[in-house]
Amino acid sequence: MNPSSQPRRAQPLEVTEWLNTDHPIELDSLVGKVVVIYAFQMLCPGCVMHGLPQAAKVSRLYPKDEVQVIGLHSVFEHHDVMTVPALKTFVSEYSYNFPIAVDKPADVGPTPITMSNYAMRGTPTVILIDKAGSLRFQRFGQLTDMQIGSYIGRLLTESGSDHQDLSTTGSESDTDGCTSEGCKA
Amino acid sequence: MNPSSQPRRAQPLEVTEWLNTDHPIELDSLVGKVVVIYAFQMLCPGCVMHGLPQAAKVSRLYPKDEVQVIGLHSVFEHHDVMTVPALKTFVSEYSYNFPIAVDKPADVGPTPITMSNYAMRGTPTVILIDKAGSLRFQRFGQLTDMQIGSYIGRLLTESGSDHQDLSTTGSESDTDGCTSEGCKA
Amino acid sequence: MNPSSQPRRAQPLEVTEWLNTDHPIELDSLVGKVVVIYAFQMLCPGCVMHGLPQAAKVSRLYPKDEVQVIGLHSVFEHHDVMTVPALKTFVSEYSYNFPIAVDKPADVGPTPITMSNYAMRGTPTVILIDKAGSLRFQRFGQLTDMQIGSYIGRLLTESGSDHQDLSTTGSESDTDGCTSEGCKA
Amino acid sequence: MNPSSQPRRAQPLEVTEWLNTDHPIELDSLVGKVVVIYAFQMLCPGCVMHGLPQAAKVSRLYPKDEVQVIGLHSVFEHHDVMTVPALKTFVSEYSYNFPIAVDKPADVGPTPITMSNYAMRGTPTVILIDKAGSLRFQRFGQLTDMQIGSYIGRLLTESGSDHQDLSTTGSESDTDGCTSEGCKA
Repeated sequence: MNPSSQPRRAQPLEVTEWLNTDHPIELDSLVGKVVVIYAFQMLCPGCVMHGLPQAAKVSRLYPKDEVQVIGLHSVFEHHDVMTVPALKTFVSEYSYNFPIAVDKPADVGPTPITMSNYAMRGTPTVILIDKAGSLRFQRFGQLTDMQIGSYIGRLLTESGSDHQDLSTTGSESDTDGCTSEGCKA
Repeated sequence: MNPSSQPRRAQPLEVTEWLNTDHPIELDSLVGKVVVIYAFQMLCPGCVMHGLPQAAKVSRLYPKDEVQVIGLHSVFEHHDVMTVPALKTFVSEYSYNFPIAVDKPADVGPTPITMSNYAMRGTPTVILIDKAGSLRFQRFGQLTDMQIGSYIGRLLTESGSDHQDLSTTGSESDTDGCTSEGCKA
Repeated sequence: MNPSSQPRRAQPLEVTEWLNTDHPIELDSLVGKVVVIYAFQMLCPGCVMHGLPQAAKVSRLYPKDEVQVIGLHSVFEHHDVMTVPALKTFVSEYSYNFPIAVDKPADVGPTPITMSNYAMRGTPTVILIDKAGSLRFQRFGQLTDMQIGSYIGRLLTESGSDHQDLSTTGSESDTDGCTSEGCKA
Repeated sequence: MNPSSQPRRAQPLEVTEWLNTDHPIELDSLVGKVVVIYAFQMLCPGCVMHGLPQAAKVSRLYPKDEVQVIGLHSVFEHHDVMTVPALKTFVSEYSYNFPIAVDKPADVGPTPITMSNYAMRGTPTVILIDKAGSLRFQRFGQLTDMQIGSYIGRLLTESGSDHQDLSTTGSESDTDGCTSEGCKA
């Protein structure tokens, strides 16, 4: 799950609509910042109870010119009720104010395109992109606040081509369906 | 908000559909049990983060023949996205297994009928009905676990016509809109 | 652990010193109130992290003329460091303001007298005495806030000789030594 | 409180006794690791409820060859009851297993020597020393898990002489005496 010696460029987000931002955000435009993406579904308990509150904490802790938090609504089930209007109500009621992208539905199958491109296993999934625009970390399930803080701290500090492997702690959830950890695709 | 010397009979729930039960539940059929109703909206943060998890704890703690927990989906805003199919997905994803009723929409206006009949001020609202079927407590906003436990304990123990006033602690939320406390109508 | 059909009179507390009260408290003088005793040791993690904070919450929630909270420092190990002066510093630093009694050391053996008389298995132990002065509940280990609230609510409401068995939920800890649950004698 | 452009070498710890280690630990011997020191008092509520549990989490999260956690018992009040034997009991009961140093009492005055040398304002105080042995961060009061994780992550990653200022977030507590935040000297 973790690109090791040769980090690869993070693939573009395929998005149909953005919330909480005046204009679409291209990953390319974020070079120089650490990017933290929380993929979620608005009716996924592990996302609502843990992932998104943590995303909001990250957004509050770090200066905007150093860390960019992005929510990515990657709906792979129950598409009929997790619609864009429903998402907008959800985001407004919870007062989340970081940018949130709607993952682009696929022509075939339930999994949206960015979710497929990143080979995500479910929601929540946390993705970290370094200041050079490379994908450095991806995990399905929950991270503690100390873990995410530590990963962000590492990416904030590194310079040049000295890329350490971030995945030294924790493990992925392996239960099917929705648990307190998350919802598996 | 609290019926004092003369508790009045709890009004019937006006319901269009029930989840997690084979048959509609009439309050009259629950005489002999303490009834704990959590009125909520599926996109109300105070309901999702506090009210419903507490309802589930109440449901797990007490024997079914002593305490009946009922969720009441009283949608007074954003009706287009808090639909019955959306509610069913929500309840399934969160694995709530106590009975949940859909409050009946009014012919005129956004407030559903049971919510109006009980003069609820928003969600979450906790309602307690004693073993004789009388409305004994109603509050908009959040109760601590110790408070709700204490109220239920009192109602479980009283017998005959010795009705104490339960409302000795806490106070109602008074903020407009949705806060961490709840959503105001 | 729970007196069932025939609740017995709670035995007197054997105390060498009281904190946070001008005068010694006799259980007999508390008839008419529900009494909640938290037996603890000042260096028992389960007491410090859970039991005493819960005792403080009980003390804040209920009117003083209805519920009397008492801390009971029942030291059965490490007597050399859990002294009365150490206890006084502990209570002052944590700003606990409910009455706290020092359990009377035995002439022989490490277990203090009240702890022996009540056959406590370790700390924390929660003891509930009803308004008539009868011992109604005793448990080693931790109770949730909802459980303790429920038990207190029941005892507050009952009148006359109608004594229900309170011990319908939860179970005792069974690990040796100190765990997050408590310290076993 | 934070050395900016010119980080200075961390002063040696002045210690009378070590717990949880076979041999005294010299800061000089830790060059190459990030060192996280939690100064505490065993009867300081903010230390017991927050600081030390966080120290234990740090100790569990990071490999021993990358991050060294040290507890520093810096007693500046109530010396008669926060003795070394009392500390040993405390550490044993709470099952803390990272190295803990006893700050050396001063010849004159209540404040121990390391606490004075570092100009600490009270307990808990968190101190971070980088891989080169320089003092990089010091704060009285509580840090969130995300903050401490972030600081450690930064120090783990930097190399050479590229020293960023860590103190971009949070603020010090300013209340006198012991609060939930900590105890002020």
